[in-house]
Amino acid sequence: MLIHNAELQLVLDLVGVFVFALSGGLVAVRKGLDLVGVLVLSWVAGLGGGVLRDVFIGAIPPVGLSDWRQMLAALVAGSLVFVMHPAFHRISRVVRVLDAAGLAVFAVGGSLKALGFDVGLLTAVIVGVLTAVGGGMLRDVLAGQVPEVLRRELYAVPALLGSATVVFAFREGFLSGYVVWGAVALVFVVRMAAVVLDLNAPHPLRTGDSL
Amino acid sequence: MLIHNAELQLVLDLVGVFVFALSGGLVAVRKGLDLVGVLVLSWVAGLGGGVLRDVFIGAIPPVGLSDWRQMLAALVAGSLVFVMHPAFHRISRVVRVLDAAGLAVFAVGGSLKALGFDVGLLTAVIVGVLTAVGGGMLRDVLAGQVPEVLRRELYAVPALLGSATVVFAFREGFLSGYVVWGAVALVFVVRMAAVVLDLNAPHPLRTGDSL
Amino acid sequence: MLIHNAELQLVLDLVGVFVFALSGGLVAVRKGLDLVGVLVLSWVAGLGGGVLRDVFIGAIPPVGLSDWRQMLAALVAGSLVFVMHPAFHRISRVVRVLDAAGLAVFAVGGSLKALGFDVGLLTAVIVGVLTAVGGGMLRDVLAGQVPEVLRRELYAVPALLGSATVVFAFREGFLSGYVVWGAVALVFVVRMAAVVLDLNAPHPLRTGDSL
Repeated sequence: MLIHNAELQLVLDLVGVFVFALSGGLVAVRKGLDLVGVLVLSWVAGLGGGVLRDVFIGAIPPVGLSDWRQMLAALVAGSLVFVMHPAFHRISRVVRVLDAAGLAVFAVGGSLKALGFDVGLLTAVIVGVLTAVGGGMLRDVLAGQVPEVLRRELYAVPALLGSATVVFAFREGFLSGYVVWGAVALVFVVRMAAVVLDLNAPHPLRTGDSL
Repeated sequence: MLIHNAELQLVLDLVGVFVFALSGGLVAVRKGLDLVGVLVLSWVAGLGGGVLRDVFIGAIPPVGLSDWRQMLAALVAGSLVFVMHPAFHRISRVVRVLDAAGLAVFAVGGSLKALGFDVGLLTAVIVGVLTAVGGGMLRDVLAGQVPEVLRRELYAVPALLGSATVVFAFREGFLSGYVVWGAVALVFVVRMAAVVLDLNAPHPLRTGDSL
Repeated sequence: MLIHNAELQLVLDLVGVFVFALSGGLVAVRKGLDLVGVLVLSWVAGLGGGVLRDVFIGAIPPVGLSDWRQMLAALVAGSLVFVMHPAFHRISRVVRVLDAAGLAVFAVGGSLKALGFDVGLLTAVIVGVLTAVGGGMLRDVLAGQVPEVLRRELYAVPALLGSATVVFAFREGFLSGYVVWGAVALVFVVRMAAVVLDLNAPHPLRTGDSL
């Protein structure tokens, strides 16, 4: 059964943890935090989404607190940023690509894991999206900035597409490795399109209210 | 047994979700967020208190992630705000009334649900208050402002009164539909009195310290 | 078996709750919050770390929501700050000492409790650190400031030392009351040394980037 494919789940998780941890470290550097701050924000950004997912589906203790490979991935990413952050700034385009990759693997991997815990289809979709956006949300809240998911180009929407795709495939019985990687590609492409084309969700009408 | 009255619980939940989701959408509009931001903050404000409650009492997965009716209520409220927010601003008095109603049904409904999970009387009171104030807290933290519960007129206190009332009635064996709605009315009236009379909890003595 | 020594656990918890609740109350006073705000932030700072710990190890409902002694300790601390905060400001050195004591008992007590829930050794270490820094993190996020653990002198590191010590002793079979109090002393001394000597973790190289 695909959804118990632990190796696939692990690869999705490790890739996602690493790239999101890079983003956490970079935010910490921008905020002028020290080494501990960089590592903590890397850890929060990389593992926070998975911890939320596990709390919500009852996978206690969360793998983000128990799997040394994921923690190591986050700490390596944080250390890399600490040492090499000027290089990362110069290659911020690379970081955005990595971030889109993290969004993709976390949304799809989060929904797959939730399906394995038998929480219902709608919950599996929502949990996938929360896995994908949760780490960045916690990172931004701790760093004292309004979460990017609330103010940037389409971010939650591609995650929702990817999660819904695997959950739909699961319900219809055609979930396979092809579908999983197809869904990952879908999230990645839609997210990158939003970045490249500077697509944004519509804003409400402006008013003169200062309320 | 009243505390297993699922229909009553559902009505309390849906009303609370809807009115708190309105408040989340309005905060998002004020912050200049886009459609996704409005819907996310509506979702957080409407469902966040219930999600915290369910995590704390072990009701996994939380209904805020699994019940399509509650999610729909939050999304409808967010969409309404997105389309009609200038009208809502003009009727901000209505919003404050709705918010008091949400506080009332969440405090009472949260404690009722906790009693059904056999978590102890004190916990049932605390969980009710957290259900009532939690969504607004999460909304404000994500929106980058100090939570209203920390800085506005008496907000947590009426919730505490309502939760304590139903838990006390449960312990003494006279919990009934009358008591439930009486407790809801109590929270609502005390909260509206605080709003109308501009009642506030006392402040600490000011000092010259700039610490 | 030491890790089921409920009395020791209770003493560690109550001391930690009280001193962290003092810190929460002081932050609330500085932010100009009212009595409810002071008590809520005292409650969050004092009990938040333990609530996170219990959610992560599956100890539902968390003792921070169910144990009247811990809640009373937090409320007494908050009330003391409310009434006597000018005195506390004058003795801010005392507060820092108390805070180091709280860090020490929470890190060690958190890991001990996690060991009793059979969550794995690595998880027990991480959970201990989160118990120690979690309340202060939540306090600062609610108060609208970047958490101290991210920007102050070595704070998470001594907690990590203490948690790792008791978990190591547990694995090697020589965990005892002496080891527990030794680990508490270790955290306290390292933390106080960081405060007194103004030790900080290294910062990343500054760059001209304004990114």
